[in-house]
Amino acid sequence: MNHTDASQDILLREDKQGAVYLTLNRAEKFNTLSEAMLSALQHELDAIAVDPAARCVVIGSNGRGFCAGHDLKEMRSNPDQGYYQTLFRNCSRLMQSIVKLPVPVIARVQGMATAAGCQLVASCDLAITGRSASFAVSGINVGLFCSTPAVALSRCVAPKQAFDMLVSGEFIDAETALAWGLVSDVSEDADLDMAVANKVSQILSKSPAAVRYGKSMFHAQRQMSLADAYDFAGNVMAENMLNPDAQEGIDAFLNKRKPTWQQPG
Amino acid sequence: MNHTDASQDILLREDKQGAVYLTLNRAEKFNTLSEAMLSALQHELDAIAVDPAARCVVIGSNGRGFCAGHDLKEMRSNPDQGYYQTLFRNCSRLMQSIVKLPVPVIARVQGMATAAGCQLVASCDLAITGRSASFAVSGINVGLFCSTPAVALSRCVAPKQAFDMLVSGEFIDAETALAWGLVSDVSEDADLDMAVANKVSQILSKSPAAVRYGKSMFHAQRQMSLADAYDFAGNVMAENMLNPDAQEGIDAFLNKRKPTWQQPG
Amino acid sequence: MNHTDASQDILLREDKQGAVYLTLNRAEKFNTLSEAMLSALQHELDAIAVDPAARCVVIGSNGRGFCAGHDLKEMRSNPDQGYYQTLFRNCSRLMQSIVKLPVPVIARVQGMATAAGCQLVASCDLAITGRSASFAVSGINVGLFCSTPAVALSRCVAPKQAFDMLVSGEFIDAETALAWGLVSDVSEDADLDMAVANKVSQILSKSPAAVRYGKSMFHAQRQMSLADAYDFAGNVMAENMLNPDAQEGIDAFLNKRKPTWQQPG
Repeated sequence: MNHTDASQDILLREDKQGAVYLTLNRAEKFNTLSEAMLSALQHELDAIAVDPAARCVVIGSNGRGFCAGHDLKEMRSNPDQGYYQTLFRNCSRLMQSIVKLPVPVIARVQGMATAAGCQLVASCDLAITGRSASFAVSGINVGLFCSTPAVALSRCVAPKQAFDMLVSGEFIDAETALAWGLVSDVSEDADLDMAVANKVSQILSKSPAAVRYGKSMFHAQRQMSLADAYDFAGNVMAENMLNPDAQEGIDAFLNKRKPTWQQPG
Repeated sequence: MNHTDASQDILLREDKQGAVYLTLNRAEKFNTLSEAMLSALQHELDAIAVDPAARCVVIGSNGRGFCAGHDLKEMRSNPDQGYYQTLFRNCSRLMQSIVKLPVPVIARVQGMATAAGCQLVASCDLAITGRSASFAVSGINVGLFCSTPAVALSRCVAPKQAFDMLVSGEFIDAETALAWGLVSDVSEDADLDMAVANKVSQILSKSPAAVRYGKSMFHAQRQMSLADAYDFAGNVMAENMLNPDAQEGIDAFLNKRKPTWQQPG
Repeated sequence: MNHTDASQDILLREDKQGAVYLTLNRAEKFNTLSEAMLSALQHELDAIAVDPAARCVVIGSNGRGFCAGHDLKEMRSNPDQGYYQTLFRNCSRLMQSIVKLPVPVIARVQGMATAAGCQLVASCDLAITGRSASFAVSGINVGLFCSTPAVALSRCVAPKQAFDMLVSGEFIDAETALAWGLVSDVSEDADLDMAVANKVSQILSKSPAAVRYGKSMFHAQRQMSLADAYDFAGNVMAENMLNPDAQEGIDAFLNKRKPTWQQPG
């Protein structure tokens, strides 16, 4: 177990048996995605992307809110088009790194997730949220339409619902986020860590190889025509079938015993 | 304020502080999208598209029903392929003009919205509906599958639900339309105008520039790959950041005061 | 009426007034999509595709479960990449044949639908399910991520919900399947056949020509840009308008009488 206990670090990382917990650690600044935070997150995701021992990632945060999006003060002190283009490019790269990461990423959401913080939730493969959490893409309230958050949001949530959130800046609650597809699970606030731990355990109980085949295939095929998606997914699945874990898993199933997966690393 | 009070006009237009209210005014003909109605709507939308003072549009109608789709009598008296191709091309152009309009369009729906009338609802950015409203793509009942309405409907509603509506011609109620994503809000019938007015006020309270950045960006990025969508949205957002409204909005937020937006026009 | 009563046949076919009932008939093997079953289904769908008398198809099964997906024993005894590629290609072809079939296909689901069995439900135009039915893409439990099922599932169900099913392998119940868009109707178990019969009757009451225009148009336009979709759908609809059924249907509507459709075949 590898534990970053430097409590002043902007981003904490803890590894537990293949699960990597990343924790935004600027509660007093609402865990904003400042340049430093974006850079720290990108750094960890890049490391996880090439780490064969990593099997799933949880992105959470300390404090009462999940993430308030960009650091408006920092943005305002750099009134330069090149600066903004680079900032949004870096943020967009981070969100796409989550999608491209070879293992599942779970958002653990307590409190408010706003603007790019809501985009972070939308960009994860799964999102588990406490009942009192709330979600908004509220840039419109400061004259800045949440354009990059809209990319992630509109790929989870039906268009009228997404546009209403974007143009109104209003919050939706956890139950609404679940009904609309922005999150995958709602728990009681007190049970949030247990709900996340259960989902992590569930993923860790599966074949590491099969989960990796699935994660990358899932997002790639969504962007293809039906015919291309089937060609691609069929080839991935044939490769997956030749993996020792699939042979072991099917043998175990046919013989009514528990499978033993190959360990990564 | 510009008020068309010629009560015999096929389409009424009223402008209130940047909100443009268009009202289909052929209650006795169920506000069908006749050639004349399509032409009148297109004319107004073309004018709004180049009007910097327009900030949002409401499409509503007079009478007990919202819109019954095409004028079947008119269609039947022109049994000619070229006529039908032109008719559907004009109708499709109108629906796409709503999507391309630089400002948000809200459908105000009372009573029945059927066939191209349901498509009109699906094509708007937002739709607010009275509780007793109902929705159908009922062309199939007269031997004419609602093909162009299917384009808009299947971009709001999940495919099995959309196909069931199209092949059955059955009505769904307002609550179902909300749950499926066809509309964005349901109010009591008696409160419909108030619900629409509240949404209009909310949009008018935002930066006109930011709303325009968002409206056009939202629909354009939906048709792109994830990477292209992020490139595009990031550039739009960087441009939005340089707009005086974003600088004012962020300054106001940081200084805990109300922002003052630049007025269009 | 054409009735296959050879009760040992792997796939039963019964034709009733234009409705074709295909029944998977290997209850003791959970109606798995073995090579033989895939081949029998493909054979029937290919025949239906060129049969002008066919007006809709119901895919159901005998026994307590709908379909358990691939035959794992058969797969395991052919540990060869070429074999698996061909198997998944054939299965993908079958699923796409349902989408491309010129008439609507309804899944009649009792009991469990798992892996490629759940994909079969997702691939049909409509799915009517008993209240006690359940759905899972459970390949992950045997080390084989349901990649080809993901193609169909992720085109019905929101991405976080689809990914959660795929990575967890967990079952969802019929009500959840309805709320998420995987199925189009839930009935009491005892009323399942009646619910299917009512939907079949409804489709048979429509113009056969109009239903065919709609079925092929619906799926083709979903893969197009908005502008291309409207061009395509407008041309299909103009052609549909020239069909005698549309002229009869509109005349009947305008004269408040029942239409009489041209019969296929």
